[in-house]
Amino acid sequence: MKVLFSFLPKEEQQLRLTNQFPQIDFIFQKGLNENELETADVVVTYGEDLKAFHINSAKELKWIMVASAGLEKMPLQEIAARDILLTNVRGIHKTPMAESILAHLLSIKKSLQVVSENQRNAIWSKRVPSSELFGSTALILGPGAIGGEVGRLLQAFGVRTIGCNRSGNTSSYMDEMISFGSIKEVLPQADIVVSILPSTEETRGLLTYEHFQSMKESAIFMNYGRGDLVKELDLLKALENKCIAYAVLDVFEQEPLGSDHPFWRMPNVIVSPHISSHSSQYVVRALEIFSRNLVAFLKQENDIENVIDATRGY
Amino acid sequence: MKVLFSFLPKEEQQLRLTNQFPQIDFIFQKGLNENELETADVVVTYGEDLKAFHINSAKELKWIMVASAGLEKMPLQEIAARDILLTNVRGIHKTPMAESILAHLLSIKKSLQVVSENQRNAIWSKRVPSSELFGSTALILGPGAIGGEVGRLLQAFGVRTIGCNRSGNTSSYMDEMISFGSIKEVLPQADIVVSILPSTEETRGLLTYEHFQSMKESAIFMNYGRGDLVKELDLLKALENKCIAYAVLDVFEQEPLGSDHPFWRMPNVIVSPHISSHSSQYVVRALEIFSRNLVAFLKQENDIENVIDATRGY
Repeated sequence: MKVLFSFLPKEEQQLRLTNQFPQIDFIFQKGLNENELETADVVVTYGEDLKAFHINSAKELKWIMVASAGLEKMPLQEIAARDILLTNVRGIHKTPMAESILAHLLSIKKSLQVVSENQRNAIWSKRVPSSELFGSTALILGPGAIGGEVGRLLQAFGVRTIGCNRSGNTSSYMDEMISFGSIKEVLPQADIVVSILPSTEETRGLLTYEHFQSMKESAIFMNYGRGDLVKELDLLKALENKCIAYAVLDVFEQEPLGSDHPFWRMPNVIVSPHISSHSSQYVVRALEIFSRNLVAFLKQENDIENVIDATRGY
Repeated sequence: MKVLFSFLPKEEQQLRLTNQFPQIDFIFQKGLNENELETADVVVTYGEDLKAFHINSAKELKWIMVASAGLEKMPLQEIAARDILLTNVRGIHKTPMAESILAHLLSIKKSLQVVSENQRNAIWSKRVPSSELFGSTALILGPGAIGGEVGRLLQAFGVRTIGCNRSGNTSSYMDEMISFGSIKEVLPQADIVVSILPSTEETRGLLTYEHFQSMKESAIFMNYGRGDLVKELDLLKALENKCIAYAVLDVFEQEPLGSDHPFWRMPNVIVSPHISSHSSQYVVRALEIFSRNLVAFLKQENDIENVIDATRGY
């Protein structure tokens, strides 16, 4: 059995796999090797390199393991037509993303940028604005695996969490739940508004300028989902008019953000270049899921984790 | 009854007190009014302005409320001799200090200074080192009220906590406990070493250069206790020799830190100018404790919070 990687794990990670599965022919290579693909049984990819024609020429392909969560660039139709097993690494983003959200929130509350600027100028000043996360209220748009982890940590800091999804049905670590239709009503209570929503027909343009007008002037808005949640011009206007105090943006309408984009220079915007899920533990965890699934795959068992229905894309 | 403040609460905070206690003559003034002090029954102070001669001239003084935790500058002997009630605001530092510790830790783990420098230069770069708090081990020197709150939050992030006090006796939110004598043995396990120890005979100079040699090269050392925990020259040498990755210092041998001090310019040092307990909620909470105590004091009840034994100083 041949397993083809289109990215290069660290040497010790490769060794762990070859030791655990001596019967398997692993090919570790950066970039998709189209020749090897023709005879590969399994492909492990970040999900941005496989095209429809690859699926057609990969005659032996039985399983595609995507070491990422988004599958927007995958040739799902062709995968579904061939009934190829498709899995991803859903769940491994929750720790780094939740830690990133807490890092930015606490950094703002404790004015760490001011502390660091004072240090650059060797200025001993105790006049640094400092507030607390404790006692805040957070609205979490998209309280799934990642949003739930954010909610769990916020609750540990004494933050009241309001989850918001399509149905308004209960989610973990949310003190209260609302549906998309009630967002505007709860915005005036929220000190923090975090979105981890995917891009779907219902979430595109879900927030408008009016929503930002309903927020507290001291509110922090964080977009960790997709850039099309709000029209960038609406968000820009809201920030220019100081409807809210801060926007922490990990996602944008267009990525990378152009070097002349106003966001870079706005003192109330933090540009995190779509890195919130990055972590030194990312590949480690992805390969742990892969190894567990490979054991089950070899035994032809059914308990494979994170199987994606290619006809639906999730 | 006359209550003299030597600092100025906000107008709404003054109003709340005068409304709750109409029978009391409150004098709110910035700086100690020595004339009023002579006839005051109660003084509310940050604890740095009262001298021995004040105690002698304040013939009516029955209670000193210190809106701070440290009592090093108080004329304790004179207070003890007159048997004046002495209280402080022990406990109100734990939330802001624990949040400050988490803010700096997460900021380092997520390289927020690099993110912010890239933003200043409009550079979209995903090559930002990013690691996790999850799975780390923290050694907490002084697991009291503040250290326990740090431990509680760290545990929520999936950090293993080792508490260290004089006795090695159990403390809340510590997975393990050691005594001062065993510090060197556990240092090689610790990714984070935080001290919230007060300055006592046993803690002065507790850490030496050798301790830093025992730490991981990737370790983060945080001093939130007192600057005399370690000789500054030892700490400087350890940082210059890269024994550890970062020092986050809220306290120093000499405060304020001189503008030519090397700490300001060291890339592996974060200078937090003794502001970790600052919070917009500080005076609010201090006055809550004061109001509760004032109710008990007026009723001549014994359930007064945070009473300090002036003969011992704690």
